[in-house]
Amino acid sequence: MDRRKFVAATGLAGATGLLSACGNRNGPQVECGNQTTSETFKWKMVTSWPRDFPGLGTGANRLAESINQLSNGRLQIKVYGGNELVPAFEVFDAVKQRTAEMGHSATYYWKGKAPAAQFFAGIPFGMSAQELHGWIYYGGGLELWREVYAPHGIVPFLAGSSGPQMGGWFNREINSVADLKGLKMRIPGLGGEILRRAGGTPTNIPGAELFTALQTGTIDATEWVGPYNDLAFGLFRAAKYYYYPGWHEPGTGLECIINQQAWNTLPEDLQAIVRVACQAAVTDTLSDFTYNNGVALKKLLDEHAVDLRRFPDEVLNHLGEISDNLVREMASEDDLMGRIYASFQAYSDIVRPWSAISDRTLLNLRADPLIR
Amino acid sequence: MDRRKFVAATGLAGATGLLSACGNRNGPQVECGNQTTSETFKWKMVTSWPRDFPGLGTGANRLAESINQLSNGRLQIKVYGGNELVPAFEVFDAVKQRTAEMGHSATYYWKGKAPAAQFFAGIPFGMSAQELHGWIYYGGGLELWREVYAPHGIVPFLAGSSGPQMGGWFNREINSVADLKGLKMRIPGLGGEILRRAGGTPTNIPGAELFTALQTGTIDATEWVGPYNDLAFGLFRAAKYYYYPGWHEPGTGLECIINQQAWNTLPEDLQAIVRVACQAAVTDTLSDFTYNNGVALKKLLDEHAVDLRRFPDEVLNHLGEISDNLVREMASEDDLMGRIYASFQAYSDIVRPWSAISDRTLLNLRADPLIR
Repeated sequence: MDRRKFVAATGLAGATGLLSACGNRNGPQVECGNQTTSETFKWKMVTSWPRDFPGLGTGANRLAESINQLSNGRLQIKVYGGNELVPAFEVFDAVKQRTAEMGHSATYYWKGKAPAAQFFAGIPFGMSAQELHGWIYYGGGLELWREVYAPHGIVPFLAGSSGPQMGGWFNREINSVADLKGLKMRIPGLGGEILRRAGGTPTNIPGAELFTALQTGTIDATEWVGPYNDLAFGLFRAAKYYYYPGWHEPGTGLECIINQQAWNTLPEDLQAIVRVACQAAVTDTLSDFTYNNGVALKKLLDEHAVDLRRFPDEVLNHLGEISDNLVREMASEDDLMGRIYASFQAYSDIVRPWSAISDRTLLNLRADPLIR
Repeated sequence: MDRRKFVAATGLAGATGLLSACGNRNGPQVECGNQTTSETFKWKMVTSWPRDFPGLGTGANRLAESINQLSNGRLQIKVYGGNELVPAFEVFDAVKQRTAEMGHSATYYWKGKAPAAQFFAGIPFGMSAQELHGWIYYGGGLELWREVYAPHGIVPFLAGSSGPQMGGWFNREINSVADLKGLKMRIPGLGGEILRRAGGTPTNIPGAELFTALQTGTIDATEWVGPYNDLAFGLFRAAKYYYYPGWHEPGTGLECIINQQAWNTLPEDLQAIVRVACQAAVTDTLSDFTYNNGVALKKLLDEHAVDLRRFPDEVLNHLGEISDNLVREMASEDDLMGRIYASFQAYSDIVRPWSAISDRTLLNLRADPLIR
């Protein structure tokens, strides 16, 4: 991506004219109090995560803190957990209406409002986190994402990654396609639609309510994120089986969304700070998830004797076929969705052979027979 | 990593006292011209890469440009290609001696000066890029790295990743361990030492000289980076075979190093800008490499009919054993190296099962039979 082009497209180049006036001893002294660089912005960031929730909530906190530090306090962001200022799944509308200037969430929650956005969190059986980032930053993904959100007056940034997610916690064993029939499972986005087409009953409920829903039998199964978050929720106490791999979210991107009018008020250097802090947050959150998923998986296996299972190939193949059909259907819905799908597929065809001879081959060199 | 602790350990907290004086209308007007925030720093960044070289040189350029933008021109960095201001492999000494305030390179080039640093670029048969970043940012890696460079008066940051690297270009076929005997190959760092122990003759020459060395028979083989960079050098024209995977560099971290005294002169917000811009550069460069390695691999196969080969298992197992022994030997050399190895291994034991049930399983779900 050409960053200068991006700044020009979304920024206020003219606002920076005063930036250096204060440092100029020959300039009018009155500029000092009014200079653009010393103006302080106080913004709200609403999130879809429980406050301080590991990886997701804390990732949003660190992003806000980072922007504060980089701007030397000129852009101060107060973070709200899900349901504190607005409900967890109203982050998009809150930013659109400027109830909050900024939001931290995942695009698949907005399938009813901006269905094309789902691609930017990744799709079932799709790209790994690393591959997805290649598309977003270098393959034209971010430009398409901006096009999807523009009619809503929202500017999107990739601002995190949970990495690959797990297949979920189950109180019913899945040994065949037939076992998916009637399965009441919390699974949002495309994964949920695929389950519906396979005969299940997908629901989406906020993370904070999952444990009770699973324990009381309101749902038979739930996916959430991975060991790190699942351990924190104690989901292993409410379910018999833990399935892997998570076919539906191979490398989920998180988003930071900003109200376009609020964005336009920022001087160019603060815009650059937000943009780069979001990009740093991608490495930060993915590192957090990678490290802590490892730590939590070990605890789940060693201390809580969690029963790891594997979806049979028959089930994965069935879900994979439904997924391919679903995504192709989406692509035919409108021009923009068609262009996103075409871009996504063209990149996917290019990156998969590379991943196959690099990361996949390297990971397969390892002798971890227990899990292989 | 606790960022506040890091800033406190390496920063100059006292220098920020004046930061907000200019914006305060009641403060003395004279502060405006002298405020810490308007002081401009002009730094040199020396690199080990040919100027503007894809991914490596351009990654360094983008990092410098990003710091310039975020700081609104208060920290201006001029980038020098390898051999422009100092030779490509004297970046470490140049930063140590403050010939340049900043350098962009890879730790394994300094095996003669700071051998323990090699771990932070990753080790043969070791962690993927994503796993390595987890260790550096969350597993204590960065703190150990700072300890390695502190006696040299250098502050390190992870500032990029090439992702997994390829096994190299060969004019001799490798069908057995015996074929490694006498092999003259450009391969730096630990990979080179492993080849030496396997009977080969490793050399390290700068990238710009590789094509000629391979074409004239000065060397039998060379690794460089991956399709993206190898295509740019035209290495396919000088060699018969292209081997994969690159056992020796499974996810190479790049570094930004800063002279400690120069670092100490920066106000706290500029230090934060450097730190976060470096972290963003990790996402940026890995995305660049992932996207463009895919594009270049397709060209190498479709347009240049490159002959891809695979090292036999016998060869990989042999190199793997030598590697394990070498790394254990290194660990016994001194206390710090021992602690780094212990940290690296402990994390590796934790993260590998996680990668196995997540990324590895997901990548193996894909049906790319040609390459699998």
